[in-house]
Parts: sequence; C-alpha cells; structure tokens
Amino acid sequence: MRLRNFIILQTFLEDTVGFVLSQTISEGDSVLLYLDRKRTYLVKVEKGKSFHTHKGFIQLDELIGKEYGTRTASSMGVEFVALKPTLRDHVFKMLRRTQITYPKDIALIVMFSGVGPGSRVVEAGTGTGALTSALAFYVKPTGHVYSYEFRKEFIETALKNLERAGASEYVDVKNKDVTQEIDEEDVDAVVLDMATPWLVVPHACKALKGSGAFVSFSPTIDQVVKTVEALKESGFVDVQTIECIMRRMQTERGKTRPETLMTGHTGYITFARKALGE
Amino acid sequence: MRLRNFIILQTFLEDTVGFVLSQTISEGDSVLLYLDRKRTYLVKVEKGKSFHTHKGFIQLDELIGKEYGTRTASSMGVEFVALKPTLRDHVFKMLRRTQITYPKDIALIVMFSGVGPGSRVVEAGTGTGALTSALAFYVKPTGHVYSYEFRKEFIETALKNLERAGASEYVDVKNKDVTQEIDEEDVDAVVLDMATPWLVVPHACKALKGSGAFVSFSPTIDQVVKTVEALKESGFVDVQTIECIMRRMQTERGKTRPETLMTGHTGYITFARKALGE
Amino acid sequence: MRLRNFIILQTFLEDTVGFVLSQTISEGDSVLLYLDRKRTYLVKVEKGKSFHTHKGFIQLDELIGKEYGTRTASSMGVEFVALKPTLRDHVFKMLRRTQITYPKDIALIVMFSGVGPGSRVVEAGTGTGALTSALAFYVKPTGHVYSYEFRKEFIETALKNLERAGASEYVDVKNKDVTQEIDEEDVDAVVLDMATPWLVVPHACKALKGSGAFVSFSPTIDQVVKTVEALKESGFVDVQTIECIMRRMQTERGKTRPETLMTGHTGYITFARKALGE
Amino acid sequence: MRLRNFIILQTFLEDTVGFVLSQTISEGDSVLLYLDRKRTYLVKVEKGKSFHTHKGFIQLDELIGKEYGTRTASSMGVEFVALKPTLRDHVFKMLRRTQITYPKDIALIVMFSGVGPGSRVVEAGTGTGALTSALAFYVKPTGHVYSYEFRKEFIETALKNLERAGASEYVDVKNKDVTQEIDEEDVDAVVLDMATPWLVVPHACKALKGSGAFVSFSPTIDQVVKTVEALKESGFVDVQTIECIMRRMQTERGKTRPETLMTGHTGYITFARKALGE
Repeated sequence: MRLRNFIILQTFLEDTVGFVLSQTISEGDSVLLYLDRKRTYLVKVEKGKSFHTHKGFIQLDELIGKEYGTRTASSMGVEFVALKPTLRDHVFKMLRRTQITYPKDIALIVMFSGVGPGSRVVEAGTGTGALTSALAFYVKPTGHVYSYEFRKEFIETALKNLERAGASEYVDVKNKDVTQEIDEEDVDAVVLDMATPWLVVPHACKALKGSGAFVSFSPTIDQVVKTVEALKESGFVDVQTIECIMRRMQTERGKTRPETLMTGHTGYITFARKALGE
Repeated sequence: MRLRNFIILQTFLEDTVGFVLSQTISEGDSVLLYLDRKRTYLVKVEKGKSFHTHKGFIQLDELIGKEYGTRTASSMGVEFVALKPTLRDHVFKMLRRTQITYPKDIALIVMFSGVGPGSRVVEAGTGTGALTSALAFYVKPTGHVYSYEFRKEFIETALKNLERAGASEYVDVKNKDVTQEIDEEDVDAVVLDMATPWLVVPHACKALKGSGAFVSFSPTIDQVVKTVEALKESGFVDVQTIECIMRRMQTERGKTRPETLMTGHTGYITFARKALGE
Repeated sequence: MRLRNFIILQTFLEDTVGFVLSQTISEGDSVLLYLDRKRTYLVKVEKGKSFHTHKGFIQLDELIGKEYGTRTASSMGVEFVALKPTLRDHVFKMLRRTQITYPKDIALIVMFSGVGPGSRVVEAGTGTGALTSALAFYVKPTGHVYSYEFRKEFIETALKNLERAGASEYVDVKNKDVTQEIDEEDVDAVVLDMATPWLVVPHACKALKGSGAFVSFSPTIDQVVKTVEALKESGFVDVQTIECIMRRMQTERGKTRPETLMTGHTGYITFARKALGE
Repeated sequence: MRLRNFIILQTFLEDTVGFVLSQTISEGDSVLLYLDRKRTYLVKVEKGKSFHTHKGFIQLDELIGKEYGTRTASSMGVEFVALKPTLRDHVFKMLRRTQITYPKDIALIVMFSGVGPGSRVVEAGTGTGALTSALAFYVKPTGHVYSYEFRKEFIETALKNLERAGASEYVDVKNKDVTQEIDEEDVDAVVLDMATPWLVVPHACKALKGSGAFVSFSPTIDQVVKTVEALKESGFVDVQTIECIMRRMQTERGKTRPETLMTGHTGYITFARKALGE
C-alpha cells in the first residue's frame, strides 16, 4: 500500500506540480550560467537565442539535451558552467532591486519559524517576491503562502519572479494592507518584512494557531523595540531577537583570511510563539 | 483533475506519512513546555504521568485534548505554555550532547545547498541526528536522506532522536565509513559535518548529479583549507566558505543592547557545485 | 643645549615621577605572576612573604634583585613567570568588580580622543579607576586627569587602585556629580563611562577647548541615541558611534579557529568634537 | 622642589619638543577642515593660500589667529570647521595609500603592548609611517622608536609624514632588513606590521628586555600560525592572538542601526611577552 501511494504521489508531483525536476536541460528551463562567484547569469533557454556577456556569447540552443553541470565555452573561448538554479540563486537574483532580506536571513526565518512541507503561512510585504519564493519552496507540496502587498507597483514584478522560480502555485499575492486585517485563520506562521511590523501584531495574533510562529525582519532597532513591545502586550511567548552577521572567507593556502569588505548589517529577526488565553 | 490528485495526496500524506499534524494534543505527542527562553522541556504526553521541574510538576494528562499553545499551571502555580515542537526545538534538544552544528548553521546549510522537497541527500556523520533530522524535514515527502556514521555508539541515540522528531521514514542510517565510499548515485547534495571532509570529496564528486551541491561544516580553518583544495582539484565550481555569527539582542525600551555573552564561533561552512567534465 | 635639557628631564622624571621603571625587581614592586593566559596574579613583592596558589606557593623574597621576565618555580615545581605589569594588566585586574570598559574599549577611547602626553582630561565616573589609570598613563608626564565620582563608596578603592598603578600623581578624584557641573576649563577631552552621559553634554561643551574631544562609553542603544541628540543640539561636529567586537583566536597548526565563547558586547563608544560658535 | 622641576620640564617641552600645542592657529600649523564624516581635509595654513574643494574655496589666511574649532564659510557659503588634527587624523590620512593597520588596530597594538611615555620600541616596516607616528606620539617625551624599512621607496614619504605629524624627533627610520638583525638592545617592545613576522622572532627575543612585549599585525591566518609557532619555540609566554571587528552605528532616533557596509577584516594581532631563561 505504501508503494502504491508513493507511485500516485510521484505521478501527481511530476505531472501537476513539476517539482521533481529533470536532470537534463530542456527548452524553457532556467539555467544559471556560472563564470565566477561574482558573475553568474540566470537565463531562460530558448531555441535560436544566444546570451551575450563581456566574455563572448553563448548559444543557448547547444545546452538543450545536456546535463545540468555541463561546461560550455563562449564564443571567446571562456568557460561557463550551466548550473541548475537553486532556491538561493533565484532569491539572490530577485534581491538586486529593492529588498535586503539576504538569503542568510531568509534561511534563519524559515528554519526558526518552523515552516516546512504543509505549512500555511501569511507573509507581508511581497516586495519582489524573494522571501515569498523561499517560503513557497519549503511549504511544498501541500502548504500555501498568502502574501500581502499594498503597493500595487510591486505586484507585477513579484508575480513574474514567482513564476520564474516555479512558486506561483503555492502563493496567493493579495493587493491588501496587512496592517488593516489578515483574512486567513489558523495559520502556522506569520512572516513580516515591512516597515511597521508592530501594527500587524494584533492581526497576527488572531490569524495564528495556538503555538504558531511570528517572525519579523527589520533593519532598525526602533522597529524591533516597538514590535517586541506589541508582542508582549498581545500575550506572545518566547520572544527573541537575533542578528546574523555573515563573513566570507578567502580560502587559499598561505592567504587565508576573512574578506576585507563585508555587509555589516541587513536587519534584526524577531521570533515569537502564540500562547492561548492570557 | 488537479483536485482529485490533491485529495489523493492529502490522504496519502495523512495516512501514511503523518506530517499534517493535528492542532490538538493527543496521547503520545511531544510537547515543548515553555517556562522562559532558557528553560524549555521536550516531553512526551502519557496518561497518568507528570513532569517534574523545580517550579513544581505538571500533570501531562491534563494537556490531552487541549490545543497547542495552551497555558497550564504547575503544582506550584507557575505558568508554562504547551508549545508544539518545531524542527528547531527538536534540533536544539538533540544538540546538547555532542554536536556543534547550531540551528543557524543548519539553516544556512539547508538553504544554500538547495535541499528541499524531493531532494536525495547523502549526509555524514550522523552524530546525534540533529542535522539529519533537519534535512529529513525539508526533503519530505518524496526525498530521502542517506546518513553515514562509522561510530557504532552513536547510531542508537541517533535512531531514537530521528524517531522522536518524526524523521525516521525519510532516513537510512548506515554504519559505514563515508571516507571509504558512497553507495548512492545521482544525489542532489552531499552534506558533511565530520572531522576529515576532504577525504570524502572524490566520493562526493562521483555520487553527485551534475550541478549538485557539496556542503561541509568544519570548526577549524585547517579543515576548510584542505577541503577547498580537494574541491578545486576535483573540478567543483562556485566554491565558497562563509561563517555565520549570531548575536542575540536584549530588547527592552531603555535597555536595548546585544547580549553580553555570545557564541563566538561554531564553524565554517563551505559550499561548492559539481561541474561535469573538466 | 638639547642634551642639558634631556638630562634635567631624566632626573626630574626619575626622582619625582618615578616612571622610568627599573628592569630589576625591588621590594615593594608589583609583579604579575603568569601561569597561563587565564591565571595571572598581580602581587606586591615584600620580604618574608609568600604567595599561595593551587599550584603551590612562591617565595616573593627570591624575586628581589631578579630581572623582570624571570621564570620561577613554585613549591610544587610549577613554573611561573614574573612579568612587569603593564597598563593593560593593571586595568584588567581593576575591572574584575564593577566595570565593563574593557581594555579594547579603553584603547579606542584613548586613541580616538587624541589624549596623549600633556593632555588635560575630565573623566566620569571614576568607578574602580581602570579608565582613569589608562588616561593618567597616557597624559604623563605633564597632563592631568580630573575624575568625577559622586558615589562615595567607590572612591577609596579607586584611590588604592590608582596608587598601585602608579597613576595617583596625575589624577584628582573629585567626589562630585558631573551632571551638575564641571569645574575645569579649556580641557582637551571629556571622557564618560556613566549611566546618563547626555546630561553632561552641556557642561562638557563649556569645559572643552575648541576642537576638543568628547567621548562616551555606553552599553545600551538608548543611552547612545540620547547622547548623540544632545551633542548635535550643543553644536558638536564629527559625531560618530562605533562598537568594537573582539575575537580571540585559538592558534595552533591543525586546530586554528576563533574561540567558541566570546564577549558579544561591552558597549558603544560615541565620539564628537567641539566646534565654536554655532 | 617639585614646582621648580615642573617649570623646567614645561620650558623644556615647549622650547624643544613643541608638543604643548597652542590653542590658536598659527601660520605653518596643520588644520583638519571638517565638512562631514567622510569629507575632511588635512591642510597646512600658509599666508596668501587658499584651499579648494567642490564646495568652494577657503582662504587659509583668515584662519590665522583664530581658535581651533572655529567655523568658517567657504566661498560658496558652505560651513567647515577648522579642527586641530589629532593623532587619529594624521594616522588616517597616512593610511590612504599602502597600509591596512587601521586606527582601531593601532590603538590595540599600543595599549596591549604597554608602550607609553618613555618606552623604547623597535618597529618594522615603516611603510607610510602611520603606526610609527602613533608609537612616537605615545613614547613622548623621553622614549624612542627605531623603525626598520628595507624598501627604499617608502622612506621619503614616511619621513615627510612623520615630520607633518610632529613625530620626527622621536623616531629613527633605518633602511635595513629587520629579518636579518635588530641593532638595539633592552627595548620595551618590538612591533611588527610586515609580511614575514616569524623571521623576526629570534631577533626580537634578543632585542627585548625580560618581560618585554612582542606585537605583530598580520592579515592572514597563515602568517599568524607561523608567528605563534616561532614565539613558542623562542620561549615567549602569554602568546595571544585577537581580531578586532569595528562596526559603525547609524544613530538617529527612529533609524538607529549598524551601518550596512563595513570593513570585515583588517588583520589579526598577536601579542607575547619575553620570559628569560628556558
């Protein structure tokens, strides 16, 4: 019986959800062309198209049917590697424009919130969809993300990014102001990356299941203090605030050292759990 | 058709995999009794049992049928909250004894490796099973973790921990030395937290799909340098080493500041991607 | 002529100020007995006395006439080194009880304030005298430190510590509340390590020379924000706040890594310069 | 008698050493023109000269006879403040070109080495003279710095910088290779900022007094490991390596946070003390 179910599940997932990705590059797939750590390009493989870089162009045709991980030479003879984009690659590419939730922060938000396969999550604001995509990736295949964004001008880009990252099916993007109301009930987590998270705390308290997780990302101390105060007033427990500082290492025998320049601060992450009653 | 598949999937998951957890506490469930940030207790709810703390005891019977998040008073009248344990809670409780892969590192390892629903992952060493549980949590429901541990004495505890965290179905714990050989092929990721990761690099290269991820966690610089050298020799690309430093904030109006004591170092994380050919 | 002046100066300094310390240990001298990094003992060498540790006792008599740096065996045959105490050693030993201005912060306070030989400095609060000693050390031989401490109970200990560190001649400890008034004028720097530095800003502005330095050390963000606001209102320029995080490295071939535990936060240091007029 | 000596000392210092600086700007003085934190200009006040910036020019004539700290308007009506350059200002301006010993590291090197008024110090390499100036500033008025630099092309600039910082009298710059030999004996400290500090350890051991301090600044871990090994072999004690990470805070009510970009790494500082015998 287990086996039968498994086959049904596989079929379901491959047919419908598409997340058991093939290992061979097909037309329409996204590929991450890797030159070096600082120069990677997320491109869509289309027939008859080429991708131009300052190191020459790459015939995307030629990638079709090859395995991910293939090395390919540009017209100038420079080697690129055609990697399969991971969640992190998608997230990084989306972050270029407006957001500062770095992958490291997204990783901690996801892990510490307990979000996983099957979770129902409310998120705001959508922004470019980077955090949204990450949440969608981890709630698959039976969970869902309800993403609030009151700034109309962000929604189109976000939808495009979610599509590209294969996350659209698991997300509802809602053009609503989350500081006014949350429509959903009994959600597992409320995840915020927005200017005034403290205004959302009462709505989050209502929307969350008992024991559910509240997570908020904020660049400034002032936002953190207001949010923590609101959480304590609403009866949340296990309220914690952390900051994650990421250092890159230059690793080479005889020259090993942390890199000279680093991102000194992205933001603080505040976690809390909803307790019932008071 | 989508709908029909969805119902089959739901049934499959609830019946077989059991990961759509109920919101009501049942006998046999694990509960995290929360007193304050530093005092939380992971206990199994059993009829007729009570749990004793220095703040009095708690009748576990009384929790049955209550919602997660319920506040409950100990025999001394001290309030505890009965939280639903998250992955992080399970991981923390497992880490007490032998490992130093802190949840922050586990979060980064998972996120940066691209491991998600459906991934097939080789991991070593199993240790207490903390990292193993995390990987299992995220590869659900169709992925799998092959966890190598050559130290026999760890295996029993690891299996118990995996059971407790609901991860057993997704993990094979293998009593083998991963520096000798990896049995699996075409895996999505190889994740290492062990003393000599550089010895595993050639086997990882063989086991990984093209574009697959290699991730290694090591406390010392010397381990990192050897591993990075081995990766470059084996034709891996996008080799990066990072360190994540986590600071806790004490957040209280008029007293806000980073906490005085902090964990200064757990380890370095090295990532790489497998390129094909050379 | 230069030479004649030099001889006068030498004589002056040796006779009167005593800071050209001899290289030979004499009765009455302080010696730092070094066992290992975590076990050092600051003791006064006196005839007929011995110093007892859990590694046996040391006859202090036997050190008299020896050179600083001498190795000496305890009664249990364990080796200690008799080091000449530096400013840092004195400061560390004073800090054990009430203060959190760590040597790293003292170093930055001194350097960034421009305090050096000849400077006249107002300081508050005296506390155990650790920061006071450091300032006195660097203003020698012609500068002076005016140290305010309104808590009577600290003054006796501070005076003893200053005496022991050879700093007494360069310091006036004043049992006054610096938030009420500063008596001195035309000082080069005002240096604060106290609970309410913002209340001192107007007095500091009056006491400082044009271009003089204001430096304040505070553990919390809230103190920093209030102080920075007061400085800007009083017409100070070049207002900067920094935090210095110090990591210890464990350095041993094959085991090199940052130490596991570290002091995560001591405090923020705020600097400013007095501009004239407005 | 104390008084008489003091007057002689004052006269000596003012006449000969010149370090009791006047509070009034005179022709020939250096002035730090402050526009904002990132735009400061170290200029020499000369009659008939003006200093041009993109915010207009400043007639340097007009500063003569004014007090340090004076606000002055440029030809475009933009306000500058004429600050008295501190050691830190001189050091910062010297660092622009070749060195990475940041003021924070210089502060720690000075403090932890115990260098103060009267110390005799050997230093290498001179570089632009930034660390040299700092050491000279603190050993005044009776100490001395012997600075080794084998690269001829650095010496002219270093001498100019030392002159400008008022440090020349306290420094001998020697065009010699310190890895070959140290000429001085019985020095209080040996301070190194150079590529191969481990080669200097045996010479440092010979040159230092018992209990004297060895300090070395190195960007890479590999340099640190070699140096620490050499120190232990030569019988040094209290060998410690630290790293100082400095974060700038953006402090403004409602917007307070660490700055986004930061210098992630300058170098490691290794300290040791010379023990006699072995």
